[in-house]
Amino acid sequence: MSSFKAVDLANPGVRTLSPYQAGKPIEEVERELGIKNIIKLASNENPLGLSRQVKAALQETLAGLARYPDANGFYLKSKLAAKHQVAANQITLGNGSNDVLELVARTYVSADHEVIFAQHAFVVYPLVTQAIGATGVAVPAKNYGHDLPAMLQAITPRTRMIFIANPNNPTGTFLTASELYEFLQQVPANVLVVLDEAYYEYVDEAERAPSIQWIAEFPNLVVCRTFSKAYGLAGLRAGYAVTHADVADYMNRVRQPFNMNSLSLKAAEVALDDVEYLAESIRLNQLGMAQLVEFCESKGLPYIPSHGNFLTIEVGDNAAKIYQQLLQAGVIVRPVAGYELPRHLRVSIGLKHENQAFIDAMSALL
Amino acid sequence: MSSFKAVDLANPGVRTLSPYQAGKPIEEVERELGIKNIIKLASNENPLGLSRQVKAALQETLAGLARYPDANGFYLKSKLAAKHQVAANQITLGNGSNDVLELVARTYVSADHEVIFAQHAFVVYPLVTQAIGATGVAVPAKNYGHDLPAMLQAITPRTRMIFIANPNNPTGTFLTASELYEFLQQVPANVLVVLDEAYYEYVDEAERAPSIQWIAEFPNLVVCRTFSKAYGLAGLRAGYAVTHADVADYMNRVRQPFNMNSLSLKAAEVALDDVEYLAESIRLNQLGMAQLVEFCESKGLPYIPSHGNFLTIEVGDNAAKIYQQLLQAGVIVRPVAGYELPRHLRVSIGLKHENQAFIDAMSALL
Repeated sequence: MSSFKAVDLANPGVRTLSPYQAGKPIEEVERELGIKNIIKLASNENPLGLSRQVKAALQETLAGLARYPDANGFYLKSKLAAKHQVAANQITLGNGSNDVLELVARTYVSADHEVIFAQHAFVVYPLVTQAIGATGVAVPAKNYGHDLPAMLQAITPRTRMIFIANPNNPTGTFLTASELYEFLQQVPANVLVVLDEAYYEYVDEAERAPSIQWIAEFPNLVVCRTFSKAYGLAGLRAGYAVTHADVADYMNRVRQPFNMNSLSLKAAEVALDDVEYLAESIRLNQLGMAQLVEFCESKGLPYIPSHGNFLTIEVGDNAAKIYQQLLQAGVIVRPVAGYELPRHLRVSIGLKHENQAFIDAMSALL
Repeated sequence: MSSFKAVDLANPGVRTLSPYQAGKPIEEVERELGIKNIIKLASNENPLGLSRQVKAALQETLAGLARYPDANGFYLKSKLAAKHQVAANQITLGNGSNDVLELVARTYVSADHEVIFAQHAFVVYPLVTQAIGATGVAVPAKNYGHDLPAMLQAITPRTRMIFIANPNNPTGTFLTASELYEFLQQVPANVLVVLDEAYYEYVDEAERAPSIQWIAEFPNLVVCRTFSKAYGLAGLRAGYAVTHADVADYMNRVRQPFNMNSLSLKAAEVALDDVEYLAESIRLNQLGMAQLVEFCESKGLPYIPSHGNFLTIEVGDNAAKIYQQLLQAGVIVRPVAGYELPRHLRVSIGLKHENQAFIDAMSALL
């Protein structure tokens, strides 16, 4: 058996795949550095913690956990369908929106296709593309955001899918509804446009695109949403796509039947109804964003104006060192060198005192 | 946009993929039939419900759910590594073992490969094979179980993977340790053998194969286990593979970083320590199996001797009708016509009174 080499058996795209670099959990940093009371502003999570309503509902659900989850997510899909005024068979549920992004690629993209995404866009797009063995096409960014005309120009007969993150992570850049609509009008019908709106709820209500309504006009449009951000369920893994019913049909054939577990299904259902928690999340984010922006302005630190729940700040050539120094000071932020932003750090909006801890630690380093 | 057809865009294997038919959740059957107090013996779940220790641990974990899970599953992997006396980097965690079975196929199988599995074996094997666009080779069963010599003969230069379920679902058939060991000795090193041991804990201790120890000798061996059966966590989705470290490395590159959620990680960790619950699960299963077997013997009903937590009974040509009649009587069992067993029904072992409810309902139909 000396002839065994796993790399020889791995699919071509997989051989050179780098694993996703997740933010370090608080426990892990505490373990490594031997310090306590760490403040984590690294993964764009909701600093409010779980909604009280969700927590109560989960406690009731615990008893049934030895049973399999509902493979069809009947109640959650019904609720989402009513909320978005679509049919339940237009919805594909995911174990977080990461699962949905992967599902749409695995269902519709093969090794001979090209997939377009923007420079500085969410790393899951190139990762899932490479895992399939397809060719990723990264279109240079414009002002850190999507250059839609250049992305249109990048379409070839081999293009099967375009990922658009709006707002984009990790830059926070935003495309207006009219920019997006004009873009969709020019994309050929045989190219799927995956619009990842993980940070949708943080966008000012007046600026939010009616993206789900557009599906009736653009059946090649896939709109992805998540419960990990404004709804505060990152630890539970809940996301979904809204699409044309036929697009959802094939995604659901590839989907693992029990991809969302019983607690995630229940939590997402209850979270949709907890409008107070959502409003509080948004309000808190606006205040925290103002707090961080004011700090950057006062110190003359450049930042990328953000429509998400994070701010990406240009701290300079020694960003990696500053990241380490912040860590030692008990504040976890996210380095974004892997996103071709080696001079920036991404800071998630936390509670007021958490933002202040970042401000204090950062001030001490300037 | 009238030219849009989702089927034209779906990957070739996906176009003809049938979705997995999950057992109906109790709530759904109650909704459909308008009856209450349904007994579900259809999905090989653990009738004990959640372990008390797990329940308590989950309540403590609720507070942190707005944070992302630990992408590396540090604590759970450490515990599994100690239990199995392997290194933590030999473990790949999954959102249920379904996730692991899919991961290994997506990492190592391409469209030009063949994948071997047995007739009557778990439906997820052909499903994941087809989704990739690879060629599934179903080897005819022998006495409802795996015909290992025939499976060896089915290996061609294009074969990349062999799925073996032991015990097998839905037949409950079992391969002895020596049969498996001899088989592994004859499989070429460049063919991965995925040994799915979802029902491992129900096998008599003396008969269990030392499969994880074999990995040192057979680096092409992938051993899959689940927390959905004897550990009682079906609703939480937790499973894992133990492999050579290099095999795990590539699987972990393809794995979604947050595939196991925070509650599943914690529950699995605690469940491993709850030895009393596990022992009670096994004891209850032995009693329930004896109860069902005795019933079959007394009525002259043929059944497939089972090493799992279910019994597959040959009820005759009208199995589909009997399934419906049992449903009306408030007992859900599983039709297995989709497994080329149109004359059988699979009955999960439940609590004593649940098994009795099946026996009473079935007796009334004979």
